[in-house]
Amino acid sequence: MKKVILYIATSLDGYIADKEHRVEWLEKLENPDSNDYGYKNFLSDIDTLIMGRKTYEVIKGFGTEWPYQHCRTLVVSRHPELAIDTPNTEVFSGDLFEEVERIKNVWSDKHIWLLGGGITTRSFLEHQCIDEIMLFTAPIVLGEGIRLFPEFRKPVRLSLLENWSYPSGMVYSHYKIIKD
Amino acid sequence: MKKVILYIATSLDGYIADKEHRVEWLEKLENPDSNDYGYKNFLSDIDTLIMGRKTYEVIKGFGTEWPYQHCRTLVVSRHPELAIDTPNTEVFSGDLFEEVERIKNVWSDKHIWLLGGGITTRSFLEHQCIDEIMLFTAPIVLGEGIRLFPEFRKPVRLSLLENWSYPSGMVYSHYKIIKD
Repeated sequence: MKKVILYIATSLDGYIADKEHRVEWLEKLENPDSNDYGYKNFLSDIDTLIMGRKTYEVIKGFGTEWPYQHCRTLVVSRHPELAIDTPNTEVFSGDLFEEVERIKNVWSDKHIWLLGGGITTRSFLEHQCIDEIMLFTAPIVLGEGIRLFPEFRKPVRLSLLENWSYPSGMVYSHYKIIKD
Repeated sequence: MKKVILYIATSLDGYIADKEHRVEWLEKLENPDSNDYGYKNFLSDIDTLIMGRKTYEVIKGFGTEWPYQHCRTLVVSRHPELAIDTPNTEVFSGDLFEEVERIKNVWSDKHIWLLGGGITTRSFLEHQCIDEIMLFTAPIVLGEGIRLFPEFRKPVRLSLLENWSYPSGMVYSHYKIIKD
């Protein structure tokens, strides 16, 4: 069964980017064994990407070739007229959770990567629409920035599936969401 | 050399308590092997406690016997007239970081436990006055509450010393602060 997986890196104080949406602090992290943190492997298990509009613009702003050409990417936005110019990408303004159910019901052994940002993540958590969280915590207290989990009302309980760390000091924790 | 250690439990989204300063979500965490997460061991290595005024009142509010009788406890407050009625406890309104230096220079193989809360922790981080962080991350996204790390300006880099998890799903990460 297809799963919705939030796969993301964060600072120890829960920021996914600094106030200017930059991730230099993450890229500059010393990585003695040049580990890709299982990224290539993860990406090969994904056929659908969901991200918020700001996250889309941030990734486009990196100026590199669109890294997710092999996936169908949904950019969540209330504005269907949003300009999209990357391959295999569409703006999505409809009922997202209905769409996710539809995608899940098409059998596939590949999964849906929820890439953030915070507002999209909150919405998915509130709708109990995330199945797993694969979190990479970088050894830095950033102080301020874009929060991984913006505030919301109802606590979400998790079950820890895996946890280990890398020589860079990155801590990996893999959770399953316990649904009501 | 005496170290200042921030030893604390947090939700995955970085809250040390809910909005009403309660920690039921932490106490109710299933703990199949009745693990104390190394707490007794840690406490036996401590002879000084530092906590903010609110944290003091929250712990007093638990209504149990004061759990830190064997330690000298400093309650940080701008109000020296604060009523203190627990053993071995004093209100501290002076230059806290001078006092910490003074305490550190009295040789002892025991350490200083910085117990929080958020405002006191931020002040210690900003003054580069924390040596180590021992963080216990509970498998829950709380949604809202009292933040472990309130916003501040200057990123603090860390070096990961240890990381493991418990059957309860609690993830333990032990960091050393990299000072400028």
